Amino acid sequence: MPVEITRRANFCAAHRLHSPHLSDEENREVYGACNNLHGHGHNYSLEITVEGEIDPKTGMLINLFELDRIIKHEIVVQVDHRHLNIDVEMLNGVIPTMENMTVVFWSAIENHLPDGVRLKRVALRESEKNSAAYSGPAHEVK
Amino acid sequence: MPVEITRRANFCAAHRLHSPHLSDEENREVYGACNNLHGHGHNYSLEITVEGEIDPKTGMLINLFELDRIIKHEIVVQVDHRHLNIDVEMLNGVIPTMENMTVVFWSAIENHLPDGVRLKRVALRESEKNSAAYSGPAHEVK
Amino acid sequence: MPVEITRRANFCAAHRLHSPHLSDEENREVYGACNNLHGHGHNYSLEITVEGEIDPKTGMLINLFELDRIIKHEIVVQVDHRHLNIDVEMLNGVIPTMENMTVVFWSAIENHLPDGVRLKRVALRESEKNSAAYSGPAHEVK
Amino acid sequence: MPVEITRRANFCAAHRLHSPHLSDEENREVYGACNNLHGHGHNYSLEITVEGEIDPKTGMLINLFELDRIIKHEIVVQVDHRHLNIDVEMLNGVIPTMENMTVVFWSAIENHLPDGVRLKRVALRESEKNSAAYSGPAHEVK
Amino acid sequence: MPVEITRRANFCAAHRLHSPHLSDEENREVYGACNNLHGHGHNYSLEITVEGEIDPKTGMLINLFELDRIIKHEIVVQVDHRHLNIDVEMLNGVIPTMENMTVVFWSAIENHLPDGVRLKRVALRESEKNSAAYSGPAHEVK
Amino acid sequence: MPVEITRRANFCAAHRLHSPHLSDEENREVYGACNNLHGHGHNYSLEITVEGEIDPKTGMLINLFELDRIIKHEIVVQVDHRHLNIDVEMLNGVIPTMENMTVVFWSAIENHLPDGVRLKRVALRESEKNSAAYSGPAHEVK
Repeated sequence: MPVEITRRANFCAAHRLHSPHLSDEENREVYGACNNLHGHGHNYSLEITVEGEIDPKTGMLINLFELDRIIKHEIVVQVDHRHLNIDVEMLNGVIPTMENMTVVFWSAIENHLPDGVRLKRVALRESEKNSAAYSGPAHEVK
Repeated sequence: MPVEITRRANFCAAHRLHSPHLSDEENREVYGACNNLHGHGHNYSLEITVEGEIDPKTGMLINLFELDRIIKHEIVVQVDHRHLNIDVEMLNGVIPTMENMTVVFWSAIENHLPDGVRLKRVALRESEKNSAAYSGPAHEVK
Repeated sequence: MPVEITRRANFCAAHRLHSPHLSDEENREVYGACNNLHGHGHNYSLEITVEGEIDPKTGMLINLFELDRIIKHEIVVQVDHRHLNIDVEMLNGVIPTMENMTVVFWSAIENHLPDGVRLKRVALRESEKNSAAYSGPAHEVK
Repeated sequence: MPVEITRRANFCAAHRLHSPHLSDEENREVYGACNNLHGHGHNYSLEITVEGEIDPKTGMLINLFELDRIIKHEIVVQVDHRHLNIDVEMLNGVIPTMENMTVVFWSAIENHLPDGVRLKRVALRESEKNSAAYSGPAHEVK
Repeated sequence: MPVEITRRANFCAAHRLHSPHLSDEENREVYGACNNLHGHGHNYSLEITVEGEIDPKTGMLINLFELDRIIKHEIVVQVDHRHLNIDVEMLNGVIPTMENMTVVFWSAIENHLPDGVRLKRVALRESEKNSAAYSGPAHEVK
Repeated sequence: MPVEITRRANFCAAHRLHSPHLSDEENREVYGACNNLHGHGHNYSLEITVEGEIDPKTGMLINLFELDRIIKHEIVVQVDHRHLNIDVEMLNGVIPTMENMTVVFWSAIENHLPDGVRLKRVALRESEKNSAAYSGPAHEVK
């Protein structure tokens, strides 16, 4: 009986959208206010979904304390209250769009899950209106 | 690396559930209070999900300004602050249930997305408790 | 020990903002899209706050079942799934703005509360961004 | 045109996480504060998603009144304002984790849906940060 | 320039509404399902509001880390993941209604605030629809 | 009949908490992670509450389009997608705590309201758990 569990974590961070592949003018045109030189910021909401079988001994797919510890250790402590373009090693050289961040966060935790627990989805919300999700490289696009 | 982006838009509208294929008595029985002659209304929350590859030059699947412009232009300006049974051309002859509206809204935007960006899901919420979603005609039901 | 209790109720309704004291052109100018001839609608969230002393026998200011019954009977059943300009007797001749509705709803329930329970505040939310509140005629404006 | 409808229902209940397959010490270690002898509790939010074709006569996949009646009758009245470990027959012998509860709730309603309406997903949220979902035994894990 | 700061904390707990001043039959009548013998539970949301002057040196009324520490230490660790009728010393002999809990929580923290910071309001929400608030014994009811 | 209207606006911004009156070590101790050199950020939610009498001709205290225009023009366009310590003239020399920001925002709009409409409260939320409010210098602290 395959089930899934989703754990949410919050962090707040500053970032600036600016691409080295574009001229300054193109950057302003593409990113608009998000290209502001000194950055802006968000309260990010991160949802990690894992899937697998229920352990009949505990009734759990994964201990939520453990899942929370992995998310906090591998992602949250590195990005919370930071400037994403400057302070975060795993985002080095990455334009910190929601799309890129979901892919980086997937890599950050996929190998830290216990046996039998598969990473299913990394979803990141940066505002009431905008969110992104990544379901892994093996996830075939229909 | 296929990712998905979801953009939310809100609109408020009046509507009445009433089917031309049913008698007045059947309409009252099927739709209950939603069949009220002069209509009622909702704050609708519309979520459009698109999928595709990240453009390495911008770190984006689609520019959110552009996605928002498409949703606003093709859907929101036509339904916001309107009576869905009377004022909206694309809902002409359509019973404005959430189910029908998701299908109509899918058609309204599927051909307006840029190359490489596929429409994945149209979700419509009409209250804290009720929502519907449509994933397209090609979406095979399991 | 004076405490307060707030009970929330939801209803969805259609309405049109149109004043008999204004010309058609003035109505369009003042109310904009809210003046649309066939109306639009909202999910309204209504919060009724009452205050008074805790009954030491029950630990309650008012039985929430009773407060809910009063709100449902005096307000919700009359406005839910209705057109506020046409179908609701207590709003007869009233422009159904949030401001006017809070005052009318105050009158609708103030005399139905049990002894020792005072109505403190009627708050009405029509969208994520807009709300109004009325604290009664005896409430002195600072 | 296959669509899906999601209906949400709320209930509040007490529970204790304690496994008969573990020693008292193991129970404390695995479940932490959730193993507290006299239990704790939650406001649960339950989302039932069904899928199928729109009935062109009504514009609906399923009458929401009927879906709500099924959820209330088969699940909510049995768990609302109860202690899940003691008072609920369908959870007899089941450790009331979110994972187990989604599977039990799936069984409780899957045979009560009208013809042509398939159960797609049972999702249960026990807090702002934790939720689980079950998509049925036939749902192949990727 | 008097400002106010509100800090929210969450906890989940079981409770049973049952008064020693009432017969079993009266208890069932007054509290309904909340009188269930083995209890039920909630995710409680607690909001503590304090007021005072801004310290020009720090721009703060009170350090939020300190306010959070006080709320956690004096209230949350004592009630979180507990049965409020059995496990919580400060609620000993108190019927755990929202009303009574706001008064007890007021007493629990009012003397722990730094000089110049006054407790203004303790608000407790037990569900989407129900909340209570206490503004202190010195708060004159209008 | 005095009523109040509340309009919400959102903005996202970066900021750093750092006081010129404190040493670097004191800054780190007082503000913790909020003192991070390159800043962090938030989705801010700003609620402006005004009060006054209902205009019987329109049924409104203030036209919400006008209130929204004032909030956007006097506050939002100046802070949205900016770094509050660097890019915002009205916050020049101000430590951008929630407390200080509510006072500055009060000053920014209090003289822009139409006759008969009084500013009642400026509330600023920077996260799910933290908010501040300012009710003006004339507001006597109880």
